[in-house]
Amino acid sequence: MAYLGDPILADDLLFRPEHSIIDQSLHPRLGGGITTNGDGFGIGWYSPDNSSPAVFKSTHPAWNDENLREVAPRIRTPLLFAHVRASSGTPVQRSNCHPFRSGRWLWMHNGSLAEFPRVRHDLQMAVDPSLYPLLEGNTDTETLFFLALTFGLTDDPPAAVARAVGFVEQVGSRHEIEHPVHMTAAATDGESIWVFRYSSEKATSSLYFSNDVAQVRRLYPDLQSLERLGTDTRFIVSEPLRDLPGAWTDVPEASWALIRRGQQEVHPFEPTVPA
Amino acid sequence: MAYLGDPILADDLLFRPEHSIIDQSLHPRLGGGITTNGDGFGIGWYSPDNSSPAVFKSTHPAWNDENLREVAPRIRTPLLFAHVRASSGTPVQRSNCHPFRSGRWLWMHNGSLAEFPRVRHDLQMAVDPSLYPLLEGNTDTETLFFLALTFGLTDDPPAAVARAVGFVEQVGSRHEIEHPVHMTAAATDGESIWVFRYSSEKATSSLYFSNDVAQVRRLYPDLQSLERLGTDTRFIVSEPLRDLPGAWTDVPEASWALIRRGQQEVHPFEPTVPA
Amino acid sequence: MAYLGDPILADDLLFRPEHSIIDQSLHPRLGGGITTNGDGFGIGWYSPDNSSPAVFKSTHPAWNDENLREVAPRIRTPLLFAHVRASSGTPVQRSNCHPFRSGRWLWMHNGSLAEFPRVRHDLQMAVDPSLYPLLEGNTDTETLFFLALTFGLTDDPPAAVARAVGFVEQVGSRHEIEHPVHMTAAATDGESIWVFRYSSEKATSSLYFSNDVAQVRRLYPDLQSLERLGTDTRFIVSEPLRDLPGAWTDVPEASWALIRRGQQEVHPFEPTVPA
Amino acid sequence: MAYLGDPILADDLLFRPEHSIIDQSLHPRLGGGITTNGDGFGIGWYSPDNSSPAVFKSTHPAWNDENLREVAPRIRTPLLFAHVRASSGTPVQRSNCHPFRSGRWLWMHNGSLAEFPRVRHDLQMAVDPSLYPLLEGNTDTETLFFLALTFGLTDDPPAAVARAVGFVEQVGSRHEIEHPVHMTAAATDGESIWVFRYSSEKATSSLYFSNDVAQVRRLYPDLQSLERLGTDTRFIVSEPLRDLPGAWTDVPEASWALIRRGQQEVHPFEPTVPA
Repeated sequence: MAYLGDPILADDLLFRPEHSIIDQSLHPRLGGGITTNGDGFGIGWYSPDNSSPAVFKSTHPAWNDENLREVAPRIRTPLLFAHVRASSGTPVQRSNCHPFRSGRWLWMHNGSLAEFPRVRHDLQMAVDPSLYPLLEGNTDTETLFFLALTFGLTDDPPAAVARAVGFVEQVGSRHEIEHPVHMTAAATDGESIWVFRYSSEKATSSLYFSNDVAQVRRLYPDLQSLERLGTDTRFIVSEPLRDLPGAWTDVPEASWALIRRGQQEVHPFEPTVPA
Repeated sequence: MAYLGDPILADDLLFRPEHSIIDQSLHPRLGGGITTNGDGFGIGWYSPDNSSPAVFKSTHPAWNDENLREVAPRIRTPLLFAHVRASSGTPVQRSNCHPFRSGRWLWMHNGSLAEFPRVRHDLQMAVDPSLYPLLEGNTDTETLFFLALTFGLTDDPPAAVARAVGFVEQVGSRHEIEHPVHMTAAATDGESIWVFRYSSEKATSSLYFSNDVAQVRRLYPDLQSLERLGTDTRFIVSEPLRDLPGAWTDVPEASWALIRRGQQEVHPFEPTVPA
Repeated sequence: MAYLGDPILADDLLFRPEHSIIDQSLHPRLGGGITTNGDGFGIGWYSPDNSSPAVFKSTHPAWNDENLREVAPRIRTPLLFAHVRASSGTPVQRSNCHPFRSGRWLWMHNGSLAEFPRVRHDLQMAVDPSLYPLLEGNTDTETLFFLALTFGLTDDPPAAVARAVGFVEQVGSRHEIEHPVHMTAAATDGESIWVFRYSSEKATSSLYFSNDVAQVRRLYPDLQSLERLGTDTRFIVSEPLRDLPGAWTDVPEASWALIRRGQQEVHPFEPTVPA
Repeated sequence: MAYLGDPILADDLLFRPEHSIIDQSLHPRLGGGITTNGDGFGIGWYSPDNSSPAVFKSTHPAWNDENLREVAPRIRTPLLFAHVRASSGTPVQRSNCHPFRSGRWLWMHNGSLAEFPRVRHDLQMAVDPSLYPLLEGNTDTETLFFLALTFGLTDDPPAAVARAVGFVEQVGSRHEIEHPVHMTAAATDGESIWVFRYSSEKATSSLYFSNDVAQVRRLYPDLQSLERLGTDTRFIVSEPLRDLPGAWTDVPEASWALIRRGQQEVHPFEPTVPA
């Protein structure tokens, strides 16, 4: 989940709504094999003065972290990333929780790199040596983030992610992995959010952003804080929170989108095959 | 969940079966309002030499506690209690996790005392002053355990629990609480297990014990360790693990049962009104 | 440790100074039997808009809590309490960490009630039944706080604490405990801080407050944020941070002090014997 | 700390002795810059039937882990490794706690690889690709272990460690690091223990093993369990537990030792310069 718009209390995003991300981690409604997202959570946010982002992560289920409940009502932010994690096998430890941060940038990801242990060596070898010491955990998501950074994320996010994904597919192909990448990812520098929906087998999980704050207000009639938000406020979610005609733009398969205040674009996403 | 029988590895009970308690905490199939049991877990067990029980508890979800995975294959036990917790509001902390222990005794409980905060003062005032300092947490379950201890649990479990429940109903009635008690509980001294199914409104969650290890073997055809277990091995569960005719005895509403090796009895349970 | 004055970043108080409270928890210099304060920590703070306080507590050692390091640079506060804990036997769990909160009030405490398990029942029985359900842990400090609340802390802090201490001494005497109370405590409503130094044997740990921000600036020449603080800024500490003549007022044995902006008073403290 | 000898309860090693490793983590007596070892701990042990080792690790200070206190009295082991950690900057997470395990082998280490972040990329690139996916954390110790495994630890421990250290020194030299390695390490396959004392600047922390269980009994007169231990029982420690003439063999600077039941040898240690 991501939020971009007028500064709002994190509490209003995380705990107040009836179908908030916290609520969803307790009661996943759609979803497939893994029923519960209780393997840690994280939030990353920017201050209104737009300095570098803070992250708050925990290996406890989000719904029972009392420190988060204390802090959330005191965080006012124009841009928040929130993520709950269902481990795909890597240890449940803080350094494996999303979002990941590098300087002004945040990154988070739903999905996975197929058979990651088999390709981990080859992928991490390609990380820029100056970035390599900053790898803290051992997840596919953090590795993909560091590959994107290596390939120029901070200069041209769509091109860098296309190269990173192309590289993962190339390595995967070398290891005879059929569908190496399944990704819905989001990156931000604190002003713009880039989102990506792509999978090697062209069957990626869904990804939506809200079109209009007026519709979102109808979603959350109890949330008075939404009344004060500008019309260019945007929510990015993996599942539409409720079925409201016209409220959500479905980011199509194999696409990326740029969302910033007053601007939203959707483009095709195609991995770049490394030379 | 409880196990009584020939010594078996805790690993075989906790992690091996496809529908183990750990698995159930991830994928609750029945259940009502609360979908996930991710607010801590605990196990208590006796050694074959029958000394006093050990407990291992954690506030992390059971399914991702790596120390439990290390220890479980090295615990061989003839009597194990296991419990996963979905908090009803009290803090997620080790001292609130089941099972609770006092000397040779273990106690665990599904259910709740209605509006516990309102009656907590009156209930805990009645705990024997010599036991009171041993209260570690602030749950209704621990309080009910200490009331049962106060009323003679170690001498006559059914009578003590009847008095404890009667007392809770009396206090609840004084506070105008309609249905003060909802309880499926289990107590053990390491040799016998007493289970209780009772609620003030006579609508208690289910409680079963297995009749015959042969049936249980059919439940878990992959678990070779079951092949070596004696016929008087018993499982106690809140939900029948699979619908196998003849495998499970349903403990009726308002009953208690005594289960020990070679013996099982079911009796009516009626709270004792304190003088 | 407590801070009162112009709003300052928690980070400047907790992590920046060379002899900060975090640093002291790693390298206690004075201190007696217990060498290390690694059994949890907590901070409580008010926002500049003076709403009710937040608390952030953890059972991990303060020096390695990464969430605290993220949050501290984003907390600007005119009044902060910070506490590191060396357990005297009660469980290391969040609900046992200081500071304790009730409405607008915070409370923290160094010291102990002697043989607390023996007197816990009698002390907690005296807690007002309407407050009793809010008892979360099982420490002597929280119990003393709830007794003070019962005896009127929010109306007249010195009188309420005098009654609470007198009551503890009375109960202790009944249990033939020689020196029931050893206390350096602090309470605040967000504007004033009351501190107490008292022990039954008249040999209480030390307690100091700073006289003059100019002296404190000399203590921390590297901390530029101190340059901007008003002259009525005050620090309250259990050990003078460095031996600077004139910098610190030693609160005498058996005294209480009131510290607020532009005001500081020291008075004798005498327990009130309950009727 | 390591123990090798007749099976003994872990409890007797960890919690009973007055100067146990747990006690030392609370009250370090010698020691330099870092005063407290509160950043996690771990134990690894073999069962008497000599199957593969178990590990129990935690990010909480060893002295307040209640699960460890429950489990320790129920672990009977002929070979135990125990380690308390003072982080040198890497995250406090379970996967960074010692001892490390690979198959039948355990590894632990006091000391550090100098400026590890700068050399981490080059060192980890040299890890065998088949082992690389098993790297769980991001510590210098785990990396050194995986280099030793890459260079043949399971076949010839002293030669493999000599090659690993030689390689680290070569990489360090390329990065103009003056003293790349400071190491007191221990490896075991469950029957033999190899210990290493070496530093590039030839100023390594101390390392001792006990000569005679009779002397050790005099160290711990209260520990009745020691009475039953065979004379070839050995303790390995970084500090002599008390100054007892003849009780301890000081492993000299730049040496390795092999310790197994009925055998102990000390040899010079010299890094092997890679071709």
